[in-house]
Amino acid sequence: MTTTALNPASVPASPFYSQAIEVRDAGRLVFVSGQVGMTPEGSVPDGVEAQATQAVANLGAVLGEAGLTPADLVKLTIYLTDPADVEPFVGAMAGTLTDPPPATTMLIVNALASPALRVEIEAVAAR
Amino acid sequence: MTTTALNPASVPASPFYSQAIEVRDAGRLVFVSGQVGMTPEGSVPDGVEAQATQAVANLGAVLGEAGLTPADLVKLTIYLTDPADVEPFVGAMAGTLTDPPPATTMLIVNALASPALRVEIEAVAAR
Amino acid sequence: MTTTALNPASVPASPFYSQAIEVRDAGRLVFVSGQVGMTPEGSVPDGVEAQATQAVANLGAVLGEAGLTPADLVKLTIYLTDPADVEPFVGAMAGTLTDPPPATTMLIVNALASPALRVEIEAVAAR
Repeated sequence: MTTTALNPASVPASPFYSQAIEVRDAGRLVFVSGQVGMTPEGSVPDGVEAQATQAVANLGAVLGEAGLTPADLVKLTIYLTDPADVEPFVGAMAGTLTDPPPATTMLIVNALASPALRVEIEAVAAR
Repeated sequence: MTTTALNPASVPASPFYSQAIEVRDAGRLVFVSGQVGMTPEGSVPDGVEAQATQAVANLGAVLGEAGLTPADLVKLTIYLTDPADVEPFVGAMAGTLTDPPPATTMLIVNALASPALRVEIEAVAAR
Repeated sequence: MTTTALNPASVPASPFYSQAIEVRDAGRLVFVSGQVGMTPEGSVPDGVEAQATQAVANLGAVLGEAGLTPADLVKLTIYLTDPADVEPFVGAMAGTLTDPPPATTMLIVNALASPALRVEIEAVAAR
């Protein structure tokens, strides 16, 4: 399998995501449920940064079950519940980016499945 | 093709969805538009339970066009318009779950494409 | 690779999307980040029609990086921020539809990643 990041010159670029990821001859595709900031003990920390860090840890654990790592991610969909959380979320995530980063869509929704949740990260991985 | 549910011990589990579904060597991938609670006659029943039941019937009909069944679903994205609909939706769906259940993300959005709609179910299937 | 549109008689049809697209033996899958109405110079035009036209241009540019065209799209997810934008959006897009049109989900969310944005178009293409 090969993956290629697509970033045409005419579309404003971002260091935080690729405009698209092309996957050729994927033998394995992994569709990951939205991961939230819930600890293994079932608690949800306050604040978008702490929840984002935990959600990324959970995403890594799910990928690890299949022997994959964040470098195998091809698409992320990030759901936040407050526009004011965009900047702290991006800051909290900056250190976790792979190269090239996955294709990514970020949306502000009304709510996630429970009121304490402020961030949810859904993913597709390929190898 | 083989599919494998990924549910690491460190991520709080749910009976209602798998944390991820891994698909190996899929010959067929089916991308299904969000299905809503509209009857074949074009009416939309009141209430999230009735709409969910109809949306699931529509999803089954779409899969059936390709000779697939709900057991071939690998990913669901569920959109509701009211946080109070989460619990009745989950109750209405509990009897329809396949084993293992698909990877699933559930979101509360502002609205769907028309104001009468309270639930929309988008899906990816593989075989 | 072959693609087939699935439109069962029992599910109300639309000229604007296919109920599902089945992809067989895809050698290439392209996961495209949500494209917005930002010009190459970084400005965002007013109005959903102008933003939709620019977002579609950006989507075409991203696909073009991989030698693909809108005819290779299999799934669109369209995010609007105002229910009143649905009708003008559909009108602005009507001339750009491929045959068969991709599977499509349209949602109204609270906001996109920056407040000026009114439409975001995410896509999967296959060849």
